[in-house]
Amino acid sequence: MKKSEIEAQKKKALPYYEKAGIILTDEEKQNMEIADFGLGKVDRVGLQLIVYVNTDRVCAKEMVLLPYQVCPEHRHVPTNGRQGKEETFRCRFGKVYLYTDGQGDKDKIGVPLPDTDVTVFHETLLTPGRQFTIMPGTLHWFAAGEEGAVISEFSTHSTDETDFFTDPAIVRIPELED
Amino acid sequence: MKKSEIEAQKKKALPYYEKAGIILTDEEKQNMEIADFGLGKVDRVGLQLIVYVNTDRVCAKEMVLLPYQVCPEHRHVPTNGRQGKEETFRCRFGKVYLYTDGQGDKDKIGVPLPDTDVTVFHETLLTPGRQFTIMPGTLHWFAAGEEGAVISEFSTHSTDETDFFTDPAIVRIPELED
Repeated sequence: MKKSEIEAQKKKALPYYEKAGIILTDEEKQNMEIADFGLGKVDRVGLQLIVYVNTDRVCAKEMVLLPYQVCPEHRHVPTNGRQGKEETFRCRFGKVYLYTDGQGDKDKIGVPLPDTDVTVFHETLLTPGRQFTIMPGTLHWFAAGEEGAVISEFSTHSTDETDFFTDPAIVRIPELED
Repeated sequence: MKKSEIEAQKKKALPYYEKAGIILTDEEKQNMEIADFGLGKVDRVGLQLIVYVNTDRVCAKEMVLLPYQVCPEHRHVPTNGRQGKEETFRCRFGKVYLYTDGQGDKDKIGVPLPDTDVTVFHETLLTPGRQFTIMPGTLHWFAAGEEGAVISEFSTHSTDETDFFTDPAIVRIPELED
């Protein structure tokens, strides 16, 4: 991504944190991470996130999804001799459509199918105050409804760089141009 | 504590979650935990908390302190063959005066001294959006300023029952009367 694209994406995300009543420091706003998953269509497949803490044992993040934006299907694999990442998503604003391993009908999912490979369709709808815990190794993807969404994530140490993505075209760690 | 006292305390705490913009389910409100630390003066030394998740590896809570209410000095010790609890406090509303191991002048602390034993006076003031990570074994106590406070806690598995308190009169797990 170009620096200008990253800055533009940060500006789009900030009003959602405000809608959720989340107070951020200027440094946190500045350090917001933009993930475009290497697909070059960040408004459709992408994620904006602020990492509060990521120590050896504990991680907490606050994520924004723009309207209908998708975080593509992946799972957290064992890393450095430890179990994969365990994470709890708690919706703070909007609607989150979360898809995890299990039975489901892809013709009845609540959001448009993403422009990337997905194989699991078991749907959980998260509205503000609702949450779901994703155990290590569980395939999952998620998307916002028409209002966008804000999600608090409580997890073990975050190791984004080892995530396994279903779509082989995906590159998790953003490449900075310019 | 009597059931009626617990219910009264829950009612006092709920407006603070609202002031912080935190959306809770009816079940979470109902299951709010009231800690009086066995001292029988919960408005002065006490804590109201809602546990979002507490798995084997990850815990997240949302805590309320009433105006000038104190959570007494304690540390998290190794439990079941594992390191003690590590926790990050993030202030969401009000002011939190956090005291941890280290140098400090007890005559210059920002809140009234609690009616319970404390030995550490290194002060960190947390305002909304500010946070602090407390590593295992670190003695700490904390109190709200005049407006009360709401604190998000991100941590490893919570084992309140093994916490070591400086004040020998303290009983962490509430005893229910009636």
